[in-house]
Parts: sequence; structure tokens; C-alpha cells
Amino acid sequence: MADKTQIQEAIKIQGEVVRKLKSEKATNDQIDEEVSKLLALKAQLGSDDGKHQFVLKTPKGTRDYNPKQMAVREKVFNTIVSCFKRHGAETIDTPVFELKETLTGKYGEDSKLIYDLKDQGGELLSLRYDLTVPFARYLAMNKITNIKRYHIAKVYRRDNPAMTRGRYREFYQCDFDIAGKYDAMIPDAECLRIVHEILSELDLGDFHIKVNDRRILDGMFAVCGVPDDKFRTICSTVDKLDKMCWEDVKTEMVKEKGLSEDAANQIGQYVSMQGGMDLAERLLQDSKMSQSKQACAGLSDMKQLFSYLQLFQVTDKVVFDLSLARGLDYYTGIIYEGVLTQTGATPAPPLQARAGDTLDGVESVSVGSLAGGGRYDGLVGMFDAKGRTVPCVGVSIGIERIFSIMEQKAEAEKVRTTEIQVMVVSAQKNLLEERLKLVTELWNAGIKAEVMYKKNPKLLSQLQHCEESGIPLVAILGEQELKDGVVKLRTTATREEVDVSRVDLVQKIRKMTSAV
Amino acid sequence: MADKTQIQEAIKIQGEVVRKLKSEKATNDQIDEEVSKLLALKAQLGSDDGKHQFVLKTPKGTRDYNPKQMAVREKVFNTIVSCFKRHGAETIDTPVFELKETLTGKYGEDSKLIYDLKDQGGELLSLRYDLTVPFARYLAMNKITNIKRYHIAKVYRRDNPAMTRGRYREFYQCDFDIAGKYDAMIPDAECLRIVHEILSELDLGDFHIKVNDRRILDGMFAVCGVPDDKFRTICSTVDKLDKMCWEDVKTEMVKEKGLSEDAANQIGQYVSMQGGMDLAERLLQDSKMSQSKQACAGLSDMKQLFSYLQLFQVTDKVVFDLSLARGLDYYTGIIYEGVLTQTGATPAPPLQARAGDTLDGVESVSVGSLAGGGRYDGLVGMFDAKGRTVPCVGVSIGIERIFSIMEQKAEAEKVRTTEIQVMVVSAQKNLLEERLKLVTELWNAGIKAEVMYKKNPKLLSQLQHCEESGIPLVAILGEQELKDGVVKLRTTATREEVDVSRVDLVQKIRKMTSAV
Repeated sequence: MADKTQIQEAIKIQGEVVRKLKSEKATNDQIDEEVSKLLALKAQLGSDDGKHQFVLKTPKGTRDYNPKQMAVREKVFNTIVSCFKRHGAETIDTPVFELKETLTGKYGEDSKLIYDLKDQGGELLSLRYDLTVPFARYLAMNKITNIKRYHIAKVYRRDNPAMTRGRYREFYQCDFDIAGKYDAMIPDAECLRIVHEILSELDLGDFHIKVNDRRILDGMFAVCGVPDDKFRTICSTVDKLDKMCWEDVKTEMVKEKGLSEDAANQIGQYVSMQGGMDLAERLLQDSKMSQSKQACAGLSDMKQLFSYLQLFQVTDKVVFDLSLARGLDYYTGIIYEGVLTQTGATPAPPLQARAGDTLDGVESVSVGSLAGGGRYDGLVGMFDAKGRTVPCVGVSIGIERIFSIMEQKAEAEKVRTTEIQVMVVSAQKNLLEERLKLVTELWNAGIKAEVMYKKNPKLLSQLQHCEESGIPLVAILGEQELKDGVVKLRTTATREEVDVSRVDLVQKIRKMTSAV
Repeated sequence: MADKTQIQEAIKIQGEVVRKLKSEKATNDQIDEEVSKLLALKAQLGSDDGKHQFVLKTPKGTRDYNPKQMAVREKVFNTIVSCFKRHGAETIDTPVFELKETLTGKYGEDSKLIYDLKDQGGELLSLRYDLTVPFARYLAMNKITNIKRYHIAKVYRRDNPAMTRGRYREFYQCDFDIAGKYDAMIPDAECLRIVHEILSELDLGDFHIKVNDRRILDGMFAVCGVPDDKFRTICSTVDKLDKMCWEDVKTEMVKEKGLSEDAANQIGQYVSMQGGMDLAERLLQDSKMSQSKQACAGLSDMKQLFSYLQLFQVTDKVVFDLSLARGLDYYTGIIYEGVLTQTGATPAPPLQARAGDTLDGVESVSVGSLAGGGRYDGLVGMFDAKGRTVPCVGVSIGIERIFSIMEQKAEAEKVRTTEIQVMVVSAQKNLLEERLKLVTELWNAGIKAEVMYKKNPKLLSQLQHCEESGIPLVAILGEQELKDGVVKLRTTATREEVDVSRVDLVQKIRKMTSAV
């Protein structure tokens, strides 16, 4: 271990590095990286008694959730799970790690971000990278051909964390998927209805949902003269249109990816198009587009989709947007993304896109993306010995970004972290037994109640605790109250006090806290 | 990759191994191990088209939870969390992995069971082994001196799995802890009250809660003439009394651990004692025990504890049992364990103890142990640079064993995996649009509803789906109903049908399903 002076010197140097980066307007990623080194050094210095020289921190890119953050998390989960349940979803869970080979070949070049476990003898394991591949493995392994399920769990990516912007190496995914052979676009439309419901209920600000279809994109690339082997790479360039202007995107296509100027210009005309069912109809008549069978199939389905979306009453927010591409390879049909609009009631959060919040693993989600998904009909077949496929469509809610927004809101408000209805306090000394007796009565009746773990706590400090933690009621016991067989019930907010007979206490508390 | 014949040969040999072990009555651990190899070989054979040669399974010692198991899990969690909340607990969460050094030196020789992550550059990480050490790290890191928190999350141990008996490498822990300097035994008594509430509410069968105190054990060892350096090892032998008879325990003490016959006999007299406050009083008068200051401190606190337990109305189930030792090193005061009694309403489950279900990591929990915990006043100080301690007492609910018992019960019952209140079905063809319109109305009203994702599903198959998945109501649309502005509402259980006007439908459904 380095001695104290060495560490202090290192802190000084590291401090300079951080200052320099900030003054040079380095990327937040770079600054985060160096700040985390600085914190580690400081923690090292703090533990200098020779016995405790470890660094007291969570691993890079991870965080603890404190009680306030957990209260926000619980609220968000409740809203989302209620919606999933309203649509009849079951839930499953899978292990946090999978056989390494289960994840192999599913994420393209993002595979380098997978956490591997150390080989301690036995199987080679990796932490799950998303919930979609484990879901596909689960379906294939159990030969399930029909299921509507949600899964909320943590996934892991050895990405460059940017925690100030809600981007972590350990983060939640929150997925809803419908697997099964059904008539076209009915489950797809329900997924969009779900995005609509959740984003409306969470009340994060104005949003819209972009939709497109991989077949339309591929058809468009074909008729614009993109060579087959360039589809994927041109697709990921198109995906940058939410962050870059068309001119820059075009330059990347032509200069970096070697596309012809003419093809790029043709693509440019299409990707600027936005609309609804009308646009799908127009493109079906488009002399170029109509040459692609794939595009036509996608466009017909898009028309069908919009007719269902009308019945589901969500067309107000849904936009057919030919620039939406999404990163992941495994999509085969419709794709979509729910985004906050900048003009929304809530200002766009000061976070960059968290790729991990959505189904894909690339840095291509627009600022404000809160949900994403699409149809992936081939993935389950990759796990089946005979290649039997199970068509799937799903959506992933960008829960970490939602937490970030809600936590910012919560800072302004007072969020309770417990649900205690009443605190049992004493006005004089030597009433511990009476307090314990009363709190037991309340627990027996299912009332959420607590006492201070002190024999003789001061009345003032007991009342203060109630005010600070927002406990609505206080049951005060004093010698006089005991003699009279009553409890003084105090409303924390108004400081009003009323004597309640011991017999009526439970009912009174229930009544007063159900109104709160 | 081995060819098909080779694998078939290997399966044959492996099958023999399993048969042999079974006939030799090998331990279940050994059999599980070999069966898992056999399954892996069979899975390999299944994927023989050359393209999909991976093994389709979850990692050793882990499992998926299917929707039915998740429904059971949710029910159990709800009961437990309600209890924790009734007692005013907040909740926190910590990352699934910690810096390796955070876990170092906390688990004694069980450290070998810790999962390490591969060194992929950066920090050395390990999966959490329990929730107690991360909790202590969290307190020290955030300089928290007072908190009452629960934490429900998965932990990881590279143990020999015995999955048929509910013993996994990935499993849930479910911890409630009170940290802070308080008057003696008040929070400790509340922990016991919580065990009592949870085991009562889960209704798993008759139970009792053994309590003891590390100071009483240590004092007893001292007065019986156990050398100081043998306290821990003799303690872990005592801990086996719930699985072994006294004669065998004594033999281990004398033959294996080198204790004198005389000391062992003296211990034998004490560890057979069970009682309540009376026993604590008697031992305070005991000529030998009273020589140990430590034992006296523990016994006085035990008296105090029982007085609080009386007020908390839980003495019916609590037994002061001098043979209770518990494995973990970090306990410093009271220890306890909730166990199912064999004569309970529910037969003892066919599982061996799951050490991982409770706070300790050793194989020493009695058959039927469902909760355990104790006071650990020194652990937080191990993380503080200046060694500042935060006294803690807590309890861990043995949730995996509870799942096992509840899942066995659930197999007999019909467990619903969704909460759908009504399914919207059509009696004739070409009514998809009408079904989608109606289900949208229901969703808008917050009703949990679904439709089949088919354009023209058969009425019978729609009704069958309701019966199979326990959906209580069916809203039937036919041409006549549409003309009349009504919906035929069918009760699945009784097959009764009644026409309900479209305007009254939502209210009618709410009324009928709230009664269900």
C-alpha cells in the first residue's frame, strides 16, 4: 500500500487532470472516468489507520439505491406492472448469469461489453446482457410457443458509465413481450398501446411514439441502390438522424461507408418522411418503393397497424417515421420508440440516451427515448435444435431514465420512505411497557406503527421524528390518559390533539389515515 | 464437438453412474451432480444438426421461475413485505457485485464459495454472498448510524447445489435489520415479533423460535473449561445438535477437536436445557454460570428480552435453548432461529436445511429452519476507517425453503398466473374490430382485460382459454348484441350468461370481480 504522502500527491495530480478536462470541455464520459479515479484515491486516504485500507465504494458504474430512491422506484414499478397486468401478462424470472455460449453471437460487436465470471472450475458463465436473449432461451428450453410475459430485472454491461446522466453498468430492464403465432399486427398494436398507457400514466411530459418496419427500411435501401452487404451499416448510420443533421449523416454514408452520392440522396428523400396511415398508403403507390416486395409487405402491415391503433385510441401519439432504424440486428418487422418531445411539460432531462434502457445495445437512441422495441421472429429459433421459430414482439421500458426524471421531481417533493400510520409515544418517563403494549395492539390490528427503541425518550424528540418522516398520526400515552383509558391522538400536520377511547383507537386510526 | 455416437456412449456410461450412486444410497448432493452431467449430455445430443450444438440449460444450481412459481413468489413476498412495512422499515438496494475486498475476511472458510468475476481490466469484483455485508458496507460508506431497513435480493454461493431440496447457487435472501444505538433488547424483541408474525401469516405449520446469546455460549464454554482458542470450533460442533444426537456431538468434541471428556460432559448438561425467563433466572443463580461476567450479561438481557416478548405477545412460540449456536462468526449477542416443528399441520418438507436461507453460511441449520438472525455489533466497524461501530440486529427469512413449501402446496391448488378480470370474445366471424373497441373501453376504465390475437377465433377456443386460465368473466359480442347495444356477460365458473347494457358494463364487471 502506498503511504499517505504518496496518496496525497496522487490526489493532487488527479485533481489537476479533472480540472484540465473540464476546462477543455472533454466529454462527460472522460470526466466521469477521471472523477471516479479521484474519489477512489480520496477513499484510500480516508482509511489510513493501517487496518482498513480498502476503498469504501460500490463497483464502477453501479450505485446503491437509498430509501428515497427505492420509494421512487417502487412507485414507477407499480405503475408499469399494473399496466402489464391489465394486459394479462404473466411474469417469469431467469438467473442473473447464463452459460456464456447462450449469449454468444447475439449482440454483434457489443459482445465485448459482456461481463464474464471467473473460471473457478465448472461452467463458463456470463452476466445477462439483456432480458430478451434469456427469454428466447427460456422459450426454446421449455418448448413454449405462446406466452405474454413481463420481466423486470437487472442486466449488466461493461460500458463506459456516465452515472451523472443515469447511465450505469448495472441497470434495470423492464420488458413486456408477446410470443406466439398470431394474426398480423394485433399483438404489435397492443405493445404500442402499452407504451402509450405507461408514458401517459407516468406523466413525464409530452411524448410521441415513432414506428417503422425493418422490411420497409430494407426495401428502401434496396430500391435506393444500397448494396446488400451494406444494409446493416447504412441502417446504423440512418439511426443517427435523431442526433445528427442529414448533411452529416449523408457525409458518413458517402465518405466513411462508401455509398454512392446518388443512393444517399435517394435515401435522404425517404428518411425525411413522417406521417400516419396516409404515408403508408402513399408509399405503397410510390413508383420506386412499390418495386420492393419487402417494402410492400411492411407498408401493408403498417396500414393494418394504424387501423388497430385507431381502435386502441392511440394514434394521437404515434408517428410513422422512416428515419427510425434502431440498432439491434434481431428485429425482423415493426420497430418503435417512445420519446419525450422537447416541448413537453417536463423539460428534457439532462441525460444522454441510455442505450441500455431499451432493447438495443448501441448508442443510437435519441435524447428522450423512454421505451423501445419491435418484432423479432428469428431469435427463439437460434436456440432450437431444429430451428423452430416462435414469433415475438415486445417492448422495453427505459426505466433508468424514468427513475432519473422521477428522482429529480422527487427532490423537490417530500417523499415518504416508510408507510407508518402512527407512532406510539409517551409523555412521561417509565412508560416503555405501556408503549410496547399499545404498539402490539396496533400491530395485531394490522396498523403500521412504531415506537422509539428507548426506555425514556423525550416527548419532543418523538414528535420531531414524526414531523421529519411524515408520520401522519401520533398516539400519546401519559399517566392521565392511562388512568382515563384513552389515548391522545395527535395529527402531525395540524398538531391537533383529540382524546380517543382505547376501544375505538384502531378504527379511528384507520379512518384518519385512509383519508390521508 | 464430439459426434453423435460418442455422446450416446457417454450418456450410457453416465446413466450407469447415476444408477450406481442411487443403488449405493449416495448423498443427494452426489446424485444431483451426476444427474446434471447426464442432462447436459442429453441436451447436447438433442442439438445435433451441427448448427446449434450448445447445451440448452440454466447454469448449475440455478433455475428459471415460471409464471406459476412467480405467482407463489409474489404472494410470499407480499406477506413478508407487508410485515416489514407494518414495522416501519425502509428498503434499500445494493449492486449484485461488490469489490472483492469488501467481501474479504467476512465469511471465514466459506469465502471459497464466493463467485468472482473475470478480470476484464479494472476492478476485481465478486457476486454478493449475503445481504448483511453489503448492508454494513452501505452504512459505513454513507455514515448512517440509524436505520431500520429491509432488503430482498438474490445472493450467490458456489455451493454444491441440491435443487431437489430447494438448495441453489442463486437464491433470495430476505433481510430485516435495525441499526443504531438503542436501549438493550427492544429492537431485538421486535425482530422476534417479526419472525412470529411472518411465520404465523404464511401458515406453513406449527413453529417455534429458539433463542440464545453468544455471550451465554461463550461464558458457558469458559466455565466448562473450554480453552479460549477452541470456542469457535466447539461452538460449531454444538450447532450440530439439531441434526446429531448428543453422543455423536460429544465424540466430535473429544475425538476430533481434542476437548477433555470432563469439559464435554459439563457442556452436555447445559446444552440440554430449554425454557423461558425462568431458565434465565435459574442460570443466573447457577454456581458455575454466575462466575462468567459475559454469561451473566447475556442472561440478564435474556430476562429483559422475555419481558418485552410478553408485551409483544409472542412468548407462546419462543424457547430459550442453550443448544442454539448458529454458524456465523460475526454475531455478538442474541441469536435466534425459527423452525417448523415436526408435529405441525404441514408435514416437514422433504428438504434438507438450506444454509443459505438464513444469515449464516454453514450447513448447520436444523431441518425446518425458516428464519434466523441475531445481533452483530462489530460488522459495520470493520468497514469504518476509524473503527466506529454501529450496533445491528437483524433477521433473515428463509425464503427459498418457504417457496419450496408453498410451491408444493400450490401444485395441489389452481394458481392463477394473470389477473385478467374479463376476456372479450366474439360469437361470430368478422368482429375483430368490435372486440378491439370494447377491450379498449375496458382498459380505459382500468379493467384488466384481453382478447385473442386472431381475426376469427372460434368461440369455443376463446371460452376454453377462460376456463383454463381461470378468467372469471367473459364479455361475448355477437351481431345481435351489437344491434341491441348490449354485451353478453358470462360467468366462467357457473356458465351463467346475462345481457348487460354497454353503458353499465364497466361497473358490472367491477362489481362481479370484486366479489370473486
